[in-house]
Formats: sequence, structure tokens, C-alpha cells
Amino acid sequence: MDPREPHFTSARLEELTQPECLELLASKKVGRVAWCGARGPQVLPANYVVVDGDIILLTSGTSQIEKALYETRTAFQVDDIDDFLEAGWSVLVVGSATFVRDAEKRHMSSGELPETWAPGRRDVCIRIRPDEITGRRLHP
Amino acid sequence: MDPREPHFTSARLEELTQPECLELLASKKVGRVAWCGARGPQVLPANYVVVDGDIILLTSGTSQIEKALYETRTAFQVDDIDDFLEAGWSVLVVGSATFVRDAEKRHMSSGELPETWAPGRRDVCIRIRPDEITGRRLHP
Repeated sequence: MDPREPHFTSARLEELTQPECLELLASKKVGRVAWCGARGPQVLPANYVVVDGDIILLTSGTSQIEKALYETRTAFQVDDIDDFLEAGWSVLVVGSATFVRDAEKRHMSSGELPETWAPGRRDVCIRIRPDEITGRRLHP
Repeated sequence: MDPREPHFTSARLEELTQPECLELLASKKVGRVAWCGARGPQVLPANYVVVDGDIILLTSGTSQIEKALYETRTAFQVDDIDDFLEAGWSVLVVGSATFVRDAEKRHMSSGELPETWAPGRRDVCIRIRPDEITGRRLHP
């Protein structure tokens, strides 16, 4: 297929409902946290869990994420892309990030915190409360 | 493993060199374009190709991306995550987006434009010229 020509495909793009987005969000272990830095948008993968509709991340006290997210608009994006079918879905959460205080964190169960794959101590807990959740699925 | 306890793992996080980042960028067909919108960061998947070190996207004249990217700082993120190995890599390009004029586009070969999976006419061509390329690999 020549991408310079008009593009004909049987693919179909569907806007997802909020419950569908939340269900898909809960199905993955890694998403991408995004914020607007001084040098432009930044996007980094992170382990997460969804607790009461909020995104919970753990990071280290020295990470870029910890420095950047303090009281700024933050996005969290999760997707699943099938290269073979040329299809997939994507969910985008936009909201505000807050730090979970240690006292509160001690009352969270282990299932309410993500298992982090990266090395190093990751004891700074961040909660992203969604203001907007949108998602799309591309059917093959 | 209890995520509330200090986290010990044999995983290793490696900063990637620019040539490694460019090689990984060229290996995928879908990445995520990110920009800073009025309501916060936005992140959407998009098909792309890398041409002379630039990211080339095709979008429709009515898409969010087309409206948002005009002369703004733009990021493009690509990753590959292995849920089983709990490992993967991520590359982030930050730069400026420009529109490729039709006259210039007509001189591009089909390999210099991405095959787009989504339906609809996608004849607005966007070039993201990287100012910064960074990447990380998490070894299991």
C-alpha cells in the first residue's frame, strides 16, 4: 500500500465509554506518566495500580517524576497495540498528582501499591486523580 | 512481594546512547505523540516512520493532533514492555513539530511516510525534529 494515496481500510475507530476505560486501565501493569516540563512534554513508563479510580505510582525520591509532578497537571496513558492485527486500544487519564503521605501509605494494603520492576528504593507514592478519562479502540 | 517493604531486585536500569535510541525508534510502527494542551498533557498513539532522524506522522485535517501540534514543543515516545520478564525499553524524543507541505510530500517516497492503521483520510503530514533523544532499558 502506498501511504501517499488516499487510504482505504476496513478498520474502525471507536470511542470508549468511561467504564470501558476503567476496566482497560485496571488490566495492565505498566503505563506512561506524562507531564509538561520546562523543555517540553515528558513521557516515561511506570508501574501502577488503580485504587478507587485513582492511579497509584511508586517512585524514588530522586527521580524526574517525583520532582516534576508536584501539583501539576499530569497524564497517565495505557495502551495495548497488536502489530499483527494493526489494531489496539488506548486510554488517557488527565488529572492532578498528589503525594501520598507516609501515614496514609502505611494504611494501604500491599494490593493498593504497585509492584515496581525498576531497581532502587521507590518509596515516594504518587496518586493521580483523574479529571478526564478518554479512550479509543481501533478494530481491525 | 510486599510493595510496602524496601524493594530488592536484580533488575538493572541502563541509560541508552543516542545511536541505540535511534535504532530502537526505527524498530517500531506505533509510538505515542504527546503535547501540552490547555487541559494538561495529552498522549495519543500514532503510526510513524523515522526519516533522516525525524519522526514522520500522518494525521487527518480534523484530528486533535493536527490542531495541537502546530509550532509547539512535542514529544514522541516509543517503548517495548515485556510483562513476563518485567523488563523493557523506552525512548523519548522531544522536539518541534512542523507540517510537511504538499509540494514536499509529493517528493517523498512511500517508505518515507507511515502506513496508517486508523480509518479515514490522513493526508496531513507532520515532521517532529528531535532536539533531545533519551532512552532507558530495564534489564530483568
